[in-house]
Order: sequence, then C-alpha cells, then structure tokens
Amino acid sequence: MPEMTDRLVQQVQGLVPFVNTLADRARPASLAHFRSPALTVETKDDLSPVTRADRETEAALRDLITTRFPDHGIFGEEAGQTGMDREFVWVLDPIDGTRAFVCGLPLWGTLIALAWRGQPVLGVLDAPALGERWVGCLGLPTTHDGRPCRARALASLDQARLFSTSPDLFAGEEQRRFEALSARVAERRFGGDCYNYGLLASGWIDVVAETDMKPYDYMALVPVVEGAGGRMSDWQGRPLRLDTPGTILASGDGAGHAAALDALGGA
Amino acid sequence: MPEMTDRLVQQVQGLVPFVNTLADRARPASLAHFRSPALTVETKDDLSPVTRADRETEAALRDLITTRFPDHGIFGEEAGQTGMDREFVWVLDPIDGTRAFVCGLPLWGTLIALAWRGQPVLGVLDAPALGERWVGCLGLPTTHDGRPCRARALASLDQARLFSTSPDLFAGEEQRRFEALSARVAERRFGGDCYNYGLLASGWIDVVAETDMKPYDYMALVPVVEGAGGRMSDWQGRPLRLDTPGTILASGDGAGHAAALDALGGA
Repeated sequence: MPEMTDRLVQQVQGLVPFVNTLADRARPASLAHFRSPALTVETKDDLSPVTRADRETEAALRDLITTRFPDHGIFGEEAGQTGMDREFVWVLDPIDGTRAFVCGLPLWGTLIALAWRGQPVLGVLDAPALGERWVGCLGLPTTHDGRPCRARALASLDQARLFSTSPDLFAGEEQRRFEALSARVAERRFGGDCYNYGLLASGWIDVVAETDMKPYDYMALVPVVEGAGGRMSDWQGRPLRLDTPGTILASGDGAGHAAALDALGGA
Repeated sequence: MPEMTDRLVQQVQGLVPFVNTLADRARPASLAHFRSPALTVETKDDLSPVTRADRETEAALRDLITTRFPDHGIFGEEAGQTGMDREFVWVLDPIDGTRAFVCGLPLWGTLIALAWRGQPVLGVLDAPALGERWVGCLGLPTTHDGRPCRARALASLDQARLFSTSPDLFAGEEQRRFEALSARVAERRFGGDCYNYGLLASGWIDVVAETDMKPYDYMALVPVVEGAGGRMSDWQGRPLRLDTPGTILASGDGAGHAAALDALGGA
C-alpha cells in the first residue's frame, strides 16, 4: 500500500475539527425523524429499508463536504458515487442501522470516513440518539466523547465477548465459519450495528464479526478501532480498503485478532 | 382470578409517585458501576452473571420498600423472597440485562413490579443509561417519560417486527415454535432484554417472544404493555402471574396477539 508523507498525515489530522462539524450537522437531520409517527419506510432494490432521515442526513453531509473540498470524491449509501478517482474520497453512511432506527432502537449511527487512495485514514462513529461519538484518525488516539479510549487485550479467546448484528445475515460457508468462532468464545450477542465497534474501541467487548459489509458500513470504523489499539481486517486477515467489501473482523488487540482469525478458519 | 375493589385500585394508582421514587433512587446505584473499569463479574449457580451493581441496586430498593410498607412481601432476583404469602408483593429485577450491562450496552433496565394476590398491577421499566422510563398501572394509561404512550395495532402478522433477546436462549420444541412465528413476520431482531417491551408499549415494534423468564423478568412489564393497549400472556395464551414463569409473548393489540399465538402453535 502507498505510504502517506508526514505532511499528508498532518493534513488529515487537521481535519478532526471538520469531521466533528460534519457529525454535529448530521445529528439534527437524523434526530428530527427518529421515533416520528410521520416517518414512512421505503424498500430499496437490495431490499434494505430507507427513509427521509437517511436521504436528508446524507444531503446535509454532502453539502458541507462539497463546499469545503470541491476536489474530493464522495461515496454515500443513498446518493451514490462522485469523483471516485480523486486522491481523497469521503465515504458516508448517514444512518447505519436503518432497521434499528425505524424500530425506535437508539443504537443506530452516522458513519463518516475519509479515504486516501482507498485507505481509511479518518473516521467518525456518531450515535445521535445516545449523544455518543467515537473519532479515529491515523496517528492519533481514538476518542470517545472527546476523551481517549482504548480497546482491551484478550488474555484468551475463550474469555471473549463476540458481537454481531444478526444471525440471520449469515449463510452457507460464512455461517459455518461464524459458528466455529462462536463455539470458541465466552459469549455472543446479537444486535447493535455500528455501535458494536464503539463498544470494542472502548474496551467493553472483544470481537465483532460480520459479513456482506459495504464500504460505507466499515470504512469509518477502521480508524476508530485501530486508533484505540484494536485490529480490523476481512476474514482472511487482509486489510480493509475502499475496494474490499465483504467480511469484517474487529478485535481488541493483535493476538486476539490472530486467535479469532484462526477460529474463523479452522472449523 | 380475584377482582380488585375500586378502593384497592385507587390505592394502587396512588403508588405511582412511590414507584417513580423507587426508580429515581435505583438509578444512581446502578449507573455508578456502568462502564466502570473496576466492575468485576461473578457467575451465579444458574450460570447467569451478577455484579455489585445488581446487589446494591436491589438493596436500595428493598430498603425503601421495607420502610414504607413493612407488611408487604418482596421477591428480588438477587436477595430472594420474603413474605410471599402477603396480599401485596414487590417483584424486583435491579438490572435486567446484566450481560448487556457488563458489555457497556445501554439497553439494560431496572424492573419494579407490585403484585396483588399474584397479579401484576403496577410496573416500572426504567432504563437508567438512556434516561428513559415506562410506568404502567392498572386502570391508567402507560407513560413513557411522563407522557401517555400507545402500542400499535397490527394490520397483519406479515407486517410485524418481532424482537427477542437472543436466538441462543431457545432450544427444542420452543425453538421450533419460535422459528414458526419468525417465518410469519416481516422481520425479527435480537438483543434488547426488557427494553424491547418499552419499544412495544410505545408502538415502534409489534411482538416480543421469549422463554425461560422468571417472575422478576416479566411481572413489571405486564402493566406497562397492557396499559398501552397491548397484550401479554404465556405461549398458550394464559395470563401471567407471579406463579407462571416460563414463556412470554407480548403484542401491540388483541388481534395481533391472537395471530402471534396461532403462529407459535401452528408449526
């Protein structure tokens, strides 16, 4: 992978206030519709739900980004891709966990990532209904509500707390591999969408495993988890980039990640 | 079942301020330990987890109840049963969702119920980490954060949102019946513990189905759900009382409840 120069790293770190501004502006756009009796749910071509809240939140984010960085690309879940050949591309999921959102569950989040040549270098996981935010940036410690947070090291896989959004998202070989990992941990729990990665970055849980993830589902989470000392990769251990959608594994430390990868592969 | 006189109903309704006081006093006791690095988790004889937070919260509740109502019985998850032969018995789960609590997930709750001759007549579902509270009382509309809330009627089971804490809690015949219900609904989601019943009482989800529930898991939820227009029973449709632990089904209205019961039975 291409290496960033120190000057570029500093440039990205200088964008932390801007991504907080983005998340601040996104909050009222999504919260205006949360638990609103007037909210109607539509179904997209891929059978996932979408609402006005998703579209209006993404529009608010794109507006701010385009004004400030007209030469950057944007890849959003709802409004699609523009300028994907640019050096810097913003990757947006206005409401990760739309199913939770429409059910009144407060665990949904807004995901904002910046990619440099396809690598995730800056990410925000904002949970508007909970008023919680994690910010991760290359070379900086991840923060939770402004204070540095730290993932925890795993003494042994059999003590791990494993989280995943739903058992119903696994099928075939991936289901078999997920069950093999589940059999090796202390407990597993379902639900949570992106919020699970915040719990991991703060050291409360140990492993998150998911499949069929799109770039806007995981790009923001990589700097958040890795800036807290954790690890993220696909289920083969390969680094996550803009062009590697699919399986996702997150762990609190390197040894735990290796053990989880081994369990996923060794059924 | 024995019928309460009007005077007794008024007496119970007069206790709504007292149960709010109970929940107010329980909040700091549990929140003091939520996400605390110092919290250690022990395992009980039934293999469920317990912490200082559970014990201290229940002690705070018992203390207030014993002082105000020395002639009432108390059945708490942690400190056991006293005076179970009394006309009024308080049923307490200081932290419902201890597994969520120790994982930093904010969906756990404090459950406080009052039973009259075994029937649940008053209940509080308090979610301290979210600052949300549902209060249900015989003859009064259920409130969410002080405002009346209403469960929603289900046009048809195939539009229902079904919630349950974990697929791993079902086995054998109950698992088969739960899968039969799942096959008939629009979507199912796992996670949430008691919080799911609050979502149902507020009209955001339609059905909750669980098994192996103890009185302290469900007694507080019956007045909350039924005071919002919903229905609760076991999986045979029998009313829930202090002496009927086991399966639990909650639905937003009577017709939806009948349809869900039919789906549970008709595999």
